[in-house]
Amino acid sequence: MPKRNATAAVIGAGDFIGSEIAKKFAAEGFSIYAGRRNGDKLAPLVQDIEAAGGEIHARSLDARKEEEVISFLNDADKHAPLEVCIFNVGANVNFPILDTTERVFRKVWEMACYSGFLAGREAARLMLPRGGGKIFFTGATASLRGGSGFAAFASAKFGLRAVAQAMARELGPKNIHVAHLIIDSGVDTAWVRERREQLWGKEALDNPDLLMPPSAVADSYWQLYQQPKSAWTFEMEIRPFGEKW
Amino acid sequence: MPKRNATAAVIGAGDFIGSEIAKKFAAEGFSIYAGRRNGDKLAPLVQDIEAAGGEIHARSLDARKEEEVISFLNDADKHAPLEVCIFNVGANVNFPILDTTERVFRKVWEMACYSGFLAGREAARLMLPRGGGKIFFTGATASLRGGSGFAAFASAKFGLRAVAQAMARELGPKNIHVAHLIIDSGVDTAWVRERREQLWGKEALDNPDLLMPPSAVADSYWQLYQQPKSAWTFEMEIRPFGEKW
Amino acid sequence: MPKRNATAAVIGAGDFIGSEIAKKFAAEGFSIYAGRRNGDKLAPLVQDIEAAGGEIHARSLDARKEEEVISFLNDADKHAPLEVCIFNVGANVNFPILDTTERVFRKVWEMACYSGFLAGREAARLMLPRGGGKIFFTGATASLRGGSGFAAFASAKFGLRAVAQAMARELGPKNIHVAHLIIDSGVDTAWVRERREQLWGKEALDNPDLLMPPSAVADSYWQLYQQPKSAWTFEMEIRPFGEKW
Amino acid sequence: MPKRNATAAVIGAGDFIGSEIAKKFAAEGFSIYAGRRNGDKLAPLVQDIEAAGGEIHARSLDARKEEEVISFLNDADKHAPLEVCIFNVGANVNFPILDTTERVFRKVWEMACYSGFLAGREAARLMLPRGGGKIFFTGATASLRGGSGFAAFASAKFGLRAVAQAMARELGPKNIHVAHLIIDSGVDTAWVRERREQLWGKEALDNPDLLMPPSAVADSYWQLYQQPKSAWTFEMEIRPFGEKW
Repeated sequence: MPKRNATAAVIGAGDFIGSEIAKKFAAEGFSIYAGRRNGDKLAPLVQDIEAAGGEIHARSLDARKEEEVISFLNDADKHAPLEVCIFNVGANVNFPILDTTERVFRKVWEMACYSGFLAGREAARLMLPRGGGKIFFTGATASLRGGSGFAAFASAKFGLRAVAQAMARELGPKNIHVAHLIIDSGVDTAWVRERREQLWGKEALDNPDLLMPPSAVADSYWQLYQQPKSAWTFEMEIRPFGEKW
Repeated sequence: MPKRNATAAVIGAGDFIGSEIAKKFAAEGFSIYAGRRNGDKLAPLVQDIEAAGGEIHARSLDARKEEEVISFLNDADKHAPLEVCIFNVGANVNFPILDTTERVFRKVWEMACYSGFLAGREAARLMLPRGGGKIFFTGATASLRGGSGFAAFASAKFGLRAVAQAMARELGPKNIHVAHLIIDSGVDTAWVRERREQLWGKEALDNPDLLMPPSAVADSYWQLYQQPKSAWTFEMEIRPFGEKW
Repeated sequence: MPKRNATAAVIGAGDFIGSEIAKKFAAEGFSIYAGRRNGDKLAPLVQDIEAAGGEIHARSLDARKEEEVISFLNDADKHAPLEVCIFNVGANVNFPILDTTERVFRKVWEMACYSGFLAGREAARLMLPRGGGKIFFTGATASLRGGSGFAAFASAKFGLRAVAQAMARELGPKNIHVAHLIIDSGVDTAWVRERREQLWGKEALDNPDLLMPPSAVADSYWQLYQQPKSAWTFEMEIRPFGEKW
Repeated sequence: MPKRNATAAVIGAGDFIGSEIAKKFAAEGFSIYAGRRNGDKLAPLVQDIEAAGGEIHARSLDARKEEEVISFLNDADKHAPLEVCIFNVGANVNFPILDTTERVFRKVWEMACYSGFLAGREAARLMLPRGGGKIFFTGATASLRGGSGFAAFASAKFGLRAVAQAMARELGPKNIHVAHLIIDSGVDTAWVRERREQLWGKEALDNPDLLMPPSAVADSYWQLYQQPKSAWTFEMEIRPFGEKW
């Protein structure tokens, strides 16, 4: 395994997508700083990465708390220069508009948009003096389309996309690559499997054409990472080949 | 002047756009409920509308407070059925990303997105049992484009657009017309005039091709109001004929 | 009925949408120049408009022939100044890609895109020296989305939209209002009724929520016509309230 | 150099982007079929690829001629299975609308849209029986925006994008990856350098942040090629880090 003197921070290092991103960048030699609400749940990820010879620092992180985000990223940067920051916190909910409480609306925004702003801004603050870096945001179908029942979720995801755009336009010329990866499909997670089975029955799980493995998301981020600065992508969507869109 | 047994609520009844919307709907016979942060500032509007034979109820309203929005719209609806609700709160700011404080980011979102969600939801709650109504949201260039320096403002406007889309898709089939009007230009207000003069000098004010009169916005809302339910528009942009886009 | 010293040209004056547009503008006092492939089929429209006291000039017009378009619009303009030109030629087809012959692909483009370019350009040529005018194009769902089987139709409609955008950006500052009206639903025509019945059975016709009356399209064009130059719309979509989107 | 039993066809193998794509895929072991209007001009490319140990078949090809496209791709496929087809014909022109002749409008469409349809369809015809393949189209800023003066070019590029979308939706589930790569900047070619110098003077060439090397486009296509079918991208844009957008 190569070793780089650089950290990659994964904010929202959940069991599926976030973990795969962490593993991929660890395998490429980055020191990983992984944060999620309950840091204890990162134990299996730590085990995986260390077993493979990688380095990971697992932290409990409430990404909605400015001071926690600052200290998480500063720690990462002190360990080794923060080269990559990936924001991957999700908060998918669906409610009829009348049942969308102000609490839900606010919480979904805090998780999926506000905390992305904090992460992006603080990563930029550390990267700018060093003259470069990568800040990537995970988007969803709801980043582009406000479907029925998605007032809260789509509002947060639209909002996150705007943050990413504004940052990309300001920071691109300063050699910070800001990108927004739109996952336009279900990803193969326990939660998605359960939901599909409820909605469409067991057969819905038998179609591998329609569920994206979390590692494919990680590979897409790695593709973005590898782009030379003469040809950066701000936005791309990924979906399994069988997906209707 | 015609008289209708119906109210039109204008949330964000500022001196320019909001006031013109109120005057237009008053002139068409609606009882107006107009809310803005400091209700005292509505005095000139009240005078104008009453002088013209119209009816207006001016209220202090902090649209970021759920209970205030509920009571404002319920009062309107008790007075006469709430047929139209127009959300017009703005919050245009521009800061480099590192200077965008979490306080600004949150406040802009509360003003331009969260309060729009509250207004839209509560209007829908009153309109649904009656089987119809109109809920209109004011958008901006920043609803579609996250320009450099606009992380906070564009994020809020993108988010509001998502709320409008989700509501339109859910409520359209229930005969509630939800629309999003994108003002893709400067509107002729004191604030915009001042800003343009600072940026480009006095001549920037001499070009009437580039500043939209607030009454034109009001007329556009009236066009949306008049659409039959067999041909509703969700989104349209307006700009002066000389505007570059 | 008012009388204006102005003509409105309708290119693609089919039995449904085009005829309703012609009737609407005739009722507003315009002299109508209506063109369609086989001008004899315009007889009922002529009868309707003349019975209502309006004025119409019906012409056979192959809108894919440059010289025919030039002479049609020049004739209109000689009769009375050409103030409005509406391009409304459709060509909806759906074929799997392997069954999309080059002949179909080319013909659909000639009808739905190339002829729109000719009409728009020649209308502009007549309007520019006079310092104003309106050029409106009819778009469709396929103007924004290339669905499966729609390579030919969507390609032509995307292409027409580009023509409209380029013209709007160039000609707006010269006081020519160019707009693109997107009809995002089936319109209530014999052809659409037949197709829906084939696909979904007779019940599909019983839902008035889902079929737009052609007159609603005409009314939308009239709304665009009435916009003051301080607040022009380039693009708006219309759909019936029950439509899924 | 690896050797694959597969061909990659490059239609529009110009001196810059197309040649770099050919070199990249040759270096990855594909037999290249390269076509351009005047096949003699492919001599330097042939030399480069063969000197590097690659295999290339250079052909004169008028991509607007159905029979030529069919025979070009069939030849490629007979040589070794056609796995990749990249359509890269450009036709960038800018004219005021009144100076856009019908000949220019038609020719630009034939080069940039119609020939792309032919290439895509015929590639699909060869790939479908074999159960897979990749069909990639080169897009431009004008694929998304019809700027002033770009009626012809943008119309063709919008139209090509629609073809790509329709094909992607139909063929994705059949394991054919259709993608549309949007180059949102000038590419470093002789033509672009000359044009920039005319417009902005010699200094415009000194800013390497704003000109994309053709090899970066080739690398982006290679990224698309490598995507697993569980996570395909339909559309991504690339631009140099200093580009305004």
